[in-house]
Formats: sequence, C-alpha cells, structure tokens
Amino acid sequence: MTKKRKICAVITARPSYSRVKTALQAIKDHPALELQLVVAGSALLDRYGTAVNFIERDGFTINEKVFIVLEGENKTAMAKTTGLGVMELANVFYNLQPDAVLTIADRFETIATSIAAAYQNIPLIHLQGGEVTGNIDEKVRHANTKLADLHFVTSEDARERVIKMGEDEDYVFNTGCPSIDLAAEIVRNPKLDFDPIEKYGGVGGTFSADQDYLVVMQHPVTTEYDEAKRDVQKTLTVIDALQIPTFWFWPNVDAGADGTSNAIRSYREEHNPKHIRFFKNMEPFDFLKLLINSKCLIGNSSVGIRECSFMGVPVVNIGTRQNRRLRGTNVIDVPYDSDLIKKAIEQQLDTPRNERSEIYGAGKSGKKIADIIANIELRFHKTITY
Amino acid sequence: MTKKRKICAVITARPSYSRVKTALQAIKDHPALELQLVVAGSALLDRYGTAVNFIERDGFTINEKVFIVLEGENKTAMAKTTGLGVMELANVFYNLQPDAVLTIADRFETIATSIAAAYQNIPLIHLQGGEVTGNIDEKVRHANTKLADLHFVTSEDARERVIKMGEDEDYVFNTGCPSIDLAAEIVRNPKLDFDPIEKYGGVGGTFSADQDYLVVMQHPVTTEYDEAKRDVQKTLTVIDALQIPTFWFWPNVDAGADGTSNAIRSYREEHNPKHIRFFKNMEPFDFLKLLINSKCLIGNSSVGIRECSFMGVPVVNIGTRQNRRLRGTNVIDVPYDSDLIKKAIEQQLDTPRNERSEIYGAGKSGKKIADIIANIELRFHKTITY
Amino acid sequence: MTKKRKICAVITARPSYSRVKTALQAIKDHPALELQLVVAGSALLDRYGTAVNFIERDGFTINEKVFIVLEGENKTAMAKTTGLGVMELANVFYNLQPDAVLTIADRFETIATSIAAAYQNIPLIHLQGGEVTGNIDEKVRHANTKLADLHFVTSEDARERVIKMGEDEDYVFNTGCPSIDLAAEIVRNPKLDFDPIEKYGGVGGTFSADQDYLVVMQHPVTTEYDEAKRDVQKTLTVIDALQIPTFWFWPNVDAGADGTSNAIRSYREEHNPKHIRFFKNMEPFDFLKLLINSKCLIGNSSVGIRECSFMGVPVVNIGTRQNRRLRGTNVIDVPYDSDLIKKAIEQQLDTPRNERSEIYGAGKSGKKIADIIANIELRFHKTITY
Amino acid sequence: MTKKRKICAVITARPSYSRVKTALQAIKDHPALELQLVVAGSALLDRYGTAVNFIERDGFTINEKVFIVLEGENKTAMAKTTGLGVMELANVFYNLQPDAVLTIADRFETIATSIAAAYQNIPLIHLQGGEVTGNIDEKVRHANTKLADLHFVTSEDARERVIKMGEDEDYVFNTGCPSIDLAAEIVRNPKLDFDPIEKYGGVGGTFSADQDYLVVMQHPVTTEYDEAKRDVQKTLTVIDALQIPTFWFWPNVDAGADGTSNAIRSYREEHNPKHIRFFKNMEPFDFLKLLINSKCLIGNSSVGIRECSFMGVPVVNIGTRQNRRLRGTNVIDVPYDSDLIKKAIEQQLDTPRNERSEIYGAGKSGKKIADIIANIELRFHKTITY
Repeated sequence: MTKKRKICAVITARPSYSRVKTALQAIKDHPALELQLVVAGSALLDRYGTAVNFIERDGFTINEKVFIVLEGENKTAMAKTTGLGVMELANVFYNLQPDAVLTIADRFETIATSIAAAYQNIPLIHLQGGEVTGNIDEKVRHANTKLADLHFVTSEDARERVIKMGEDEDYVFNTGCPSIDLAAEIVRNPKLDFDPIEKYGGVGGTFSADQDYLVVMQHPVTTEYDEAKRDVQKTLTVIDALQIPTFWFWPNVDAGADGTSNAIRSYREEHNPKHIRFFKNMEPFDFLKLLINSKCLIGNSSVGIRECSFMGVPVVNIGTRQNRRLRGTNVIDVPYDSDLIKKAIEQQLDTPRNERSEIYGAGKSGKKIADIIANIELRFHKTITY
Repeated sequence: MTKKRKICAVITARPSYSRVKTALQAIKDHPALELQLVVAGSALLDRYGTAVNFIERDGFTINEKVFIVLEGENKTAMAKTTGLGVMELANVFYNLQPDAVLTIADRFETIATSIAAAYQNIPLIHLQGGEVTGNIDEKVRHANTKLADLHFVTSEDARERVIKMGEDEDYVFNTGCPSIDLAAEIVRNPKLDFDPIEKYGGVGGTFSADQDYLVVMQHPVTTEYDEAKRDVQKTLTVIDALQIPTFWFWPNVDAGADGTSNAIRSYREEHNPKHIRFFKNMEPFDFLKLLINSKCLIGNSSVGIRECSFMGVPVVNIGTRQNRRLRGTNVIDVPYDSDLIKKAIEQQLDTPRNERSEIYGAGKSGKKIADIIANIELRFHKTITY
Repeated sequence: MTKKRKICAVITARPSYSRVKTALQAIKDHPALELQLVVAGSALLDRYGTAVNFIERDGFTINEKVFIVLEGENKTAMAKTTGLGVMELANVFYNLQPDAVLTIADRFETIATSIAAAYQNIPLIHLQGGEVTGNIDEKVRHANTKLADLHFVTSEDARERVIKMGEDEDYVFNTGCPSIDLAAEIVRNPKLDFDPIEKYGGVGGTFSADQDYLVVMQHPVTTEYDEAKRDVQKTLTVIDALQIPTFWFWPNVDAGADGTSNAIRSYREEHNPKHIRFFKNMEPFDFLKLLINSKCLIGNSSVGIRECSFMGVPVVNIGTRQNRRLRGTNVIDVPYDSDLIKKAIEQQLDTPRNERSEIYGAGKSGKKIADIIANIELRFHKTITY
Repeated sequence: MTKKRKICAVITARPSYSRVKTALQAIKDHPALELQLVVAGSALLDRYGTAVNFIERDGFTINEKVFIVLEGENKTAMAKTTGLGVMELANVFYNLQPDAVLTIADRFETIATSIAAAYQNIPLIHLQGGEVTGNIDEKVRHANTKLADLHFVTSEDARERVIKMGEDEDYVFNTGCPSIDLAAEIVRNPKLDFDPIEKYGGVGGTFSADQDYLVVMQHPVTTEYDEAKRDVQKTLTVIDALQIPTFWFWPNVDAGADGTSNAIRSYREEHNPKHIRFFKNMEPFDFLKLLINSKCLIGNSSVGIRECSFMGVPVVNIGTRQNRRLRGTNVIDVPYDSDLIKKAIEQQLDTPRNERSEIYGAGKSGKKIADIIANIELRFHKTITY
C-alpha cells in the first residue's frame, strides 16, 4: 500500500476559506491524500468573523492555529504580520512534515506560506495565480507564482499568463475556481431557506428577505489607504438615497480596514438607516443563496466577478480592485462616483437577468485539483522556461 | 532646491557588498541622492567574515545594524531568518522613511528586504534579476523581480528575461554589474601590492604569492544540502594531489555551510596541508588583485563568471551553482568529479590567458545606476504587461 | 567635560506616559543626562489614543517607533506581543547604545524592555516596583524588579517590599510618583480652563462641564477576562440610573479590552444616553483638571489611588484591580455590585471633600529621579542580598 | 475516571535535560499525569550536541521542536533568541493546552517559557529556583521565580530564599535535585563499562580510561564575555603542564561560547596535545560514570557542585560561576589563576576521597516532583506574601 500524500493547506482569511472549501473537502476525501489544515491570521480573529468556527463546523480538523496579525492601521503591520507568519509557519511545516503545501491567491500574508514551504524544499502549490489587479495584491500573487511549483488557475487567460511568466506548462492547470463548485450547487437549488437576520443577527434595520433587496460588499483598496474612507462614502450615499432593503457586509482585514469601517460606523451613528442591515460575515453557502436571490451585488468583491458570473447575478463593480480580471456580462464597472454608481444599479434593476457564464469553471474544480495533486510528480526544483 | 532622494540599501552578506560597493559609493556621492545603509544578517557575524568592518573601513556610515540569522544547520533556520528579517526591516524602513529601497540579487534573506519595502509602498529597486541558476536562489530572485518596481540587470539576456516575465521595459536597465567597476580598476593596475598572509592571517601553510598559485572558493549548493560535504571533498582531493600553492576561501553562510566547512576542517586536521592557506575573507579589491595574478580560480563562485571574465582569469567552475549564467571563454565547466576537475585545471594552466569579455559590463555600472535612480520617476504601482 | 549619560526610556502605553512625563522631562533637562525615547506598542495605535501624538506635542523627540502589538482577543496575543517586543527592543538598544534603560511599572509588555536591556548588560532602571495587585501585572512587576538594577518606587510600603525581595537598599529609592508632580501643579491652579467636548470631541451626549459631573474610567481586569463584560455592566447600570453628567473614558488595550469595550458600545447603541460623553483619551494635564473639578471618579484606575489622593478627589474604586495598593481617605472600595457602587457614589457626593494626602509623594519626583540617575554608580551586576 | 493532567516541559539545552531527566520520566510514568515534551533552542543544534537525539533515544516522544537560537557572538542574539522563544512557545502552548508548564533553572531563554505560560494563565512550575550565582543567570532565575506558581528547589537554603522573596511556602518544595537520582544509581553501580573514545569519538589524543584521568568542563561566564578566552587559557596552561590524561568537554552555547571555543581550538591547533581528548557531549549516565571514576573534575560546571558532592568526586571549581551555591567538602574553589588551579588539582589528587553528601538530595527527586504535581491544586493566581 502506498502512503498517503500529506497536503498542508494554510487558511489565513475568511474569503480564502470560502473560495477553496470544496478543494479542501476533496483533498480530505481523496483516498491517496491526507489533509493537514493550518488556520492563521485574521481567520482566527473575532473582528474579522472568526472563520475558524465555520471551518470546524464544516467538519475539518485543524492541526495548528497560528496567531500572526499585528495590530495597527498601517502598512508596517502588514509587513510584520507576514514576517511573523514566515517564522511560525516554518516551524509548523517542520513539525507537520507535509509532502506539499497549498497557498491561496494573493493576500499579503500568503507569501509567508510560500516562503516557509519553498525554503524548506517542500513542493508548493499555488491556487489562483495569473490574475491581474494592479496593486500590492498583484505583486504578491506573481511572487507566489515564482515561488510555487504547481499552479491551479481559474481561467484560461490566467493560465496563459502564468506560463508566460516562465512556468512549466505541465505544472499549470486551469481547473476553474473551486468557489464555482458551491455556486453550481446553489444554481441547482436556489431557494433562500433561512432568514438572514434571524440566523446571523447583525445590526441596523430589520426587514425580510422576501422582498427585492441589494447586497453590498466593499473592501478598501490597499495602496489607496487614505482614500478608503472617501471611497466607501460614495456607496453609502447612493444606498442611502435608494432606500431599497440592503444587506451590507463589513470588509475583511487589511491596512485600510479601519478607514472603511470607520466611515460605515459614522454613517450608521449619524443616520441610523432602517433599510440597511450590517453583517460581519455569513457562511459561504448562505451568502451565495442571499446573492442569487438578490437584485444586484454592489462593491468590489471578487465574488461579483466569479460566483455571480456563474450564477447570473447582476453586479455593480466599483473602482480598481477587480481591474483586468476576466468578467462575464453580469458586471457593470464604475469608478468611485455616486452618480455613476446609482445609474449602474438602476440599469441592473431595470434589465432582465444575465445568462450564466462558465469562464471561471463549471463546478468540480475541487475534485479536479485533488486528483491532480494525488497523481502528479511533486517536485521543488524548477527553473524558468526561457 | 529639491530634496535629496533617500535610497536605503540593505546589505546582508559579504559577497553582496563586494558586488554593489561601487553603486553604493555612487549613490553616496550623487548630489541628488542620500544613501541610507542597513547592515543585517551574516554581514554582521564573525563566523562569516564580519563584512560590516570592511563597510565601515570603506567610509560608509551605517544607519542601522540588524541581527536576524537563526542558528541551525537546516532550512527551517533559513526560513525563520527571512521572517525575522521582514519584521525587523519593516520597522527600520518605517523609521528611516526612504524614498526607495535597494535589494540585491537572490540570497534567501533578500526577499525580506523586498517584502518590507513593497508592503509599505516604498519603491523597490532590485539589482541582478533575470539570471538563471535553477535552485531556491532562482525562486527568490524571480520573486524579488515580481515585487520590485525598478530593475538593474547585469547582462542582456537577463534584461530580456525580466521583460518577458511581464515587467515594464522602461524600468529594466542593463547597466552591467557594479562588480566589474572594481575589476576595471584592477585591470588598469593589476600589481599584487600586498602579502596575503601577512595582511589577512588565515590558517594553514605559509608561502609567498610571488610564485604561481591557485585560488579556491566553493560554496555549498543550497538544495543539495546533504551532498555539500561530499561535493567539496572532490575539490579537496584534487588540490591535495596538485601540490600547487593555493589560497582557499571559506564559504559564506547558508543551510549547507556547515557541511562544507566541516569537510574542509576535517581535511585540514587530518592532512595539515602545507601548500594551502585558508582565509575567511578578504577585502574585495585585494581579492580581485589576488585573482588577476592567479593561474586559475576553482570552485563555484559567481566571481568566476563575472569579474574573472572581465579580467580574463581562467576559471574551473564546478557543479550546478552557476548553471545557465551567461559566461565568457575563460570558464571551463565540470561536474563534481575529481578526475574532470583535475583535467580542467591542468588545461587552464597549459593554455594561454583568455581575452577579456564585457558581457557583464565595461565599468561605470555604479555611476549609471545612481544616475538612473536620481532621475527616474520612482513609483510603487505596477502591473504585469500582458 | 564628562560625557552625558544616555538614558533610554521605553513608553508602551498612554497611561505609562502620563505617569512618568515629569521624569522624562527632568531627564531631558538634566545637564548630565541625554534622553533617548522609544515609543512602542499601543502608544502608537489609534485604537488606544495614539499617545505618540501627545508625546511629540509635549516637545519630546522620539528616537525610534516600534510596532509590536499582536491583534487578538486572547492572552496568546499578549505573550507574542511581549516576545516581539524583546526582539525589536534588543536591536533598538544595540543601535542606540544607552548607558541605562528605563522600564515602567507592570504592563505585560514592560518585561520586554527589561529583558532586552538586562540581557545586553545595560543597567536597568525600574519605576514603580513593589506594589501589590494580585494578578498577572503583579507577576510582571516583581519579575521586572528581579531583572532591574535600580528601583524608583512611589510609596514607603513599596520600598520595603522591594528590599524584602532581596534588592540592595542602596539602589531602592522612594521618590514618590512622578504623576504627583503634575497633580501638584493642578492643585496650585485648579481652574477648568477648557471645554472637554469642544477640545476632545468624543461621542455621546453633549453638555457643559460647568455643572456637577462624574468621571468614569474602568479597565478590564486581565485574569478575569470572561467577566470583563459583566463587570462594566454593573457600572453602566448605576451611571444610567443616576442621570448625572458623566465623562467616560475607554479602557486601554489588554486581553480583556474588547469585552469591556463591547459592553460599552452595546449600551450606547441601545440606550443612546444623553448624559454620558465617551472619550478615547485626554492629555494628562487636562484629565487631572477634569478630575479635580469633578464630584467623583468611578472605576478602577490607579489615578484614583495616586493623583486623586493627592488632589483630594473622592473616588469609588471598583473591584480587585487596585487591591492592596496603599490608599488615602478619598477612596471607597466596592465590589462589582450595582447597589454598592451606587451607595458609594452617593456617599461621596454627600460628604465634604477629603484632605489631600502625600502617601504617593509631594511633587518633584521627576527631578529627584533624574538627579539620582545622573549621580549613582550605574551597574548591571547584582546579587540577592540573602 | 479523572482526566490526566497534561504537564508540558520545555527543554532548551543539553545540561537542563540531564538534570531533569528523572523528573520527566516520573511524570511520563505517573498514572495521573501526561507528559508533553517541547524541545527548543540549542537542544536541537548540532553545534551543541543535539540533545534531541538523546531525548528520543531515552524513549521520550517529542510533541514539538522549536528553532529559536539566533546566531551571533553577542548578547543581542541572546535577547532575540528569548523573544523568539516567547513568540513560538506562546503558540505551542495555545495548541497543546497543557494544565501546567514546567521551566527549568536559569538559562537565559528559560524566561521565554515562563512568560509564554504565565501570560496565558497556565500554571507555571519552576525547577531549581532560589540559588545564587551573581550574574544574568541569577536575574533570570529569580524573575522565573516571580512568574512561577509552584517551585521545586534542590536545597534547603534555596527553599528559604524563595520563600523570603515572597512566595507562598505551601508551593515551595525542597525535593532535592533530580540529577542526584541518576547519581544515586551510579553510586550503586559505579563500574566504567564503556570506552569513552570508542563510544563517543571526540578529537585529540587517544588513551584508555583504565588509568588515572581528569575531566574538564569549563563554560564561559556570560557577563564577563571578553574574558572568556583568557579565562579558559589558564586552565589549558595547567592541564598542558600536568600531562595527565584528560577528558575535556566543550562548553554549551551562550554569548561567550565562541571565545572559549576559539581558545580551545587554537590551543589544539598549536599544541596538538596527546594527553587530552575533546568531546562535544556524552549521555548523562555515561558522563557521571566517567566522573565517579575520575581523579578530579576541573572547571565551573554545576555538576561539580551537585552530582559530584553526592558521588564524593573531588572538584576544582574555577571562578565565579558557581558562587554562593551550597557546596560539599569535595570542592576546592580557586580564581582564574594558573598557579592556584594547579595547586588545587594537586591537593585533590593527594588527599583521600571525600565523603558523599546529601545537601542536594538523596535520590527519588523525580518521583517526588511528579507526585506533588499530580496532587497539588494547580493555580495561576498568586500574590506576594508581604
């Protein structure tokens, strides 16, 4: 009997977890693989929704929890968090002895996972490389690509980009995004079978989800730190004026988090809006159900680009955060401008529902990823192809 | 009057310092630039030659010294050293507030400089990207490239490679290697005007440099950790057999250092060789003089590829460490095989001196680098070009 | 001319700064001393009032700012913050080369300063040892004492305790608390010459300070983490019922901070109290003026024990946080019990003002401390006296 | 059935392990206890004898290995190692969830264990407090005492001192030193049943242990860093002159290690002494057998004070390292003076063997410690007794 390959995944934030959940599940269930799960960073923190609780509720066993988030409203804290992550994860990998390590996407601290693995000659698997966003996330994403040995990307253009950067095409796979696996389930059974306020609490106005409603999720854009406050205020103005029931989700942590959060909090205190309910977080499955039944998603979340394109949910995408990511016909892009945001929402409300698109996969991504990891020759030596 | 641009260079190892010394000097001397110098890592440690002493003797003022090297003969220590570097350097940059940070080449801890700068939105300058070596150094080098905003490379093929990776060609400059600046001075005045043993001590046999002699500098190859000992023993066997006066330099620190060092130490204790003198380190200028007057350099140092090609010094390059680096006609490549190493040395001793080559620059690199840094628009936003 | 002694003080929190401000000023002004100032930890963070801004406004030059606070609502974060503090401060002291380091009181991260100094053979000065509080603070305080070489304590019982622990009595000085220096100035000129809301903003009800008012400052008690929320609710209930204008100050950071803060925030959102104004922080001088003109201070701040005893301000001290600290007749101690808290406040409001007490000094502490530091033989060797 | 108490011991160095081995064994074997073992610091490093190998060979399972040792010949590295230890151990304890943590003696990094436990409200057990040595070790030891909740000391004077420092006497136990448990076994069966050179290799002269021989073990004294080299040279001079077969043990790591090591290495290279054999380390059991059969132990190891007093082995104790530790009649104390060292050795060789002493226990310490840990009420609240 062959030994199972130990695959160590490091989850550092709530959205990363949602995105790869089906891949983790498929690794866990694969007869030739053993999942080792490390939860670190903001995924452990109450302020950012304690993703760790969802992870455990989903039936995963966590091998190690690692606290690394430095407090501070500045970029120095981001760098130090990453440094601390390298130190702690180096030790974790040394003790867990995985056959491969899996790092996800492009959050600043994901490079800590990459370094801790690559420097110890542990084959590094990177999910969701090759995309283009134009800020520090992009630098991190491509640096992760150059440290990684095996790449799973979510679209064809991403695959081509990774190969162009000099990666061996035999180790670059377009499996689609595992988040689409979840969306595919939702499409099969889209009924909203829970009351968001009853199940998740939140603060603000109280209303039912049986009527037409909007969803907002707007994150600060890291390198435009000082503008985070001003940016979100444009959206607040519009939503305030529209007076349509709205479920609003707080941003997750990064250097600008408090700018955005403070703007939202000030608005709440001053206006006490009855048509908006604010949530810290929601289980991914429920969140997608909320979206598929909504009239429109507003903000700059990548969910609008990926899951919503697959589910055919209209999206008003604000600002530069999703710049140059491949998108379906469901998305209208607007700058930080209240008038244009308002017009785009109205346009989405007025036109019939979009067709579903499979540019980010057709489901089964998690399974495909696990199968490849189980069968490919894992290696940590590579060289640029040109 | 315009404010001087503050350029913060981080030196983490003796060879890195030697290589960029003229660039540092040119930055220091440039009327529009102010040099901030941070010395970290093995450059501070006695075991690796205390480069910091040379730096101060050369007239540089050090703004901050940072201890980050974890002890241990394994790769976990390399990762943790890097993590610690990120944390400390983040704070250093926060306090020094440079207009740009300069990181050098590809040693494992150089990515700490890159992260600490990039995450704080400080424009990052990378020296010597685009080369190909095929191990962890290469992963680090290319990851540095993807984190950096401005690139100075040392050869035309490196420049093309950096651009192919998606970097903006307006920010990629082939200035040649600053180390060639020093070599150019030596070529103008090649006389060996000091006695190596008298000036640097060292241990082992005592002999004069007036006769024919060899120089050996062989580093462990990081990802072949367990073989470090065996590898250097091939060279020891050959040098022992040849009985030609030889100046041998200890390797600088990395995960395999002790394997190599132990092999050398055991050999010394057992054989007490009268024709070999062992040195920890030598000032770059003196080292190049020693080389230009030698019959052959043996080992795997990049000095053999760069400076020696410019100075026309014969080189026997052993193993994979310099793989795929552009080389002149002065180099004979051999694997870790005593017979082949011996034959290559004999061939170099028998044939007339090589022509000098300018593939790594023609001198004036330091000056060119400083001029570009002084005049280019520094930026920290970038995006891949495709 | 003799060289000035370089004295490096490390400030890690707003209250610590307030307490030692006059000592810092006296060191700065002393002809034989040079002040080096390091600001670290929560003193740099917006969430805790950005003490660093006050420090700079007071005319101090900061040599180095050091980010060390780990985010997290748990005790693991406290430990890691301390570890990070040791690492960073070790480097800071190495670069600043002080003749002595000054660490203050007993916050968890103060031991980082002590270790970084003691391990590098830098004489360590500890302020405010020898007090008794019965939780982790006390462990830290006494451990600081055992690492320190020179002790400045604030009361006679503290002096005796430090000596009993085995410290050399020639190096233990009861100088009184520097915070009393400020209080002495206030006593000389007690007029409230600013409008708190106009000058400091804050949130909540709007009212004038010309009428009778209360001040509340209640911190979580670290080792009773889970009870922080419940504890502060007792006080909220009483203040809500009394309907007397109240200036309420948020707690500073530690493991239970969010428990307390959340309780306060929930109360505000539910009750929107018009007679309470909430402040993050206030300049020490203004804060003392606010106190001397108040009817009563309620909570568990050490200001109630020290400054208020000197200024004769009535205090209702709640719970165990100030347990076994020497106190004047101005203090009524009560447990976490709404009825008892209410009765104690009413008793303080009904009885005539207390006499001023000098158990924590009579002013001039800062000056005394600076003089001793300038003249005593600094040393880092010591041994227990029995 | 009651749950077993999880007791987490942290081993950071070879000598610490030897000293507490029987206590670890007794905890492991106790029906009400579960041993969690963390190996950190120099105990993992080849340069210091890789204690971890002995620990595993003795049948212990290691829960976690933690790399923390910073490289560097200075005290900054000691401080940073400690800071890193706090950070890593905080995470380890968080994940292991022990009911109590055990820290040993007074090495600089032991306070990392203490802080990581105390700050997380984990009851802290300290072994070997209350002793007096007069340098940084003593500061660390007493600071450990002030952070600890339960104390096991090795002699009656140490017990009294810990109580005098304000510790609750119900939580201070003189169990004797666990190292004496091993010595007691040796006394019952003292035959030297192995050949040291055959079993342990080492370098230097080759000779049998059947004849009269000496043992040397001399550590640098931390706060006298610059003198480390000079100090050990006195001993080298005497041993060189005596020409008696000598087994010499390298010092373990601390800030002065390289000073001492370099002096020894230089001596070896120059003199190539045939009557001295140098060892890095030896299993504790074998080491005690070597001692009990030796004519005299020379140096400054605490083994001379503890185990040798119990076994009646003559000791020449050099310098201040064991100052004020209780000692038996087997010890002659001398300063760093070649003449006095020589005379003392000759005196020990000339006089009949000493009586055995039980000042450091009579055996069974390990068992006693485990029994108390299993039965006492574990707590993390304490306050000074006066």
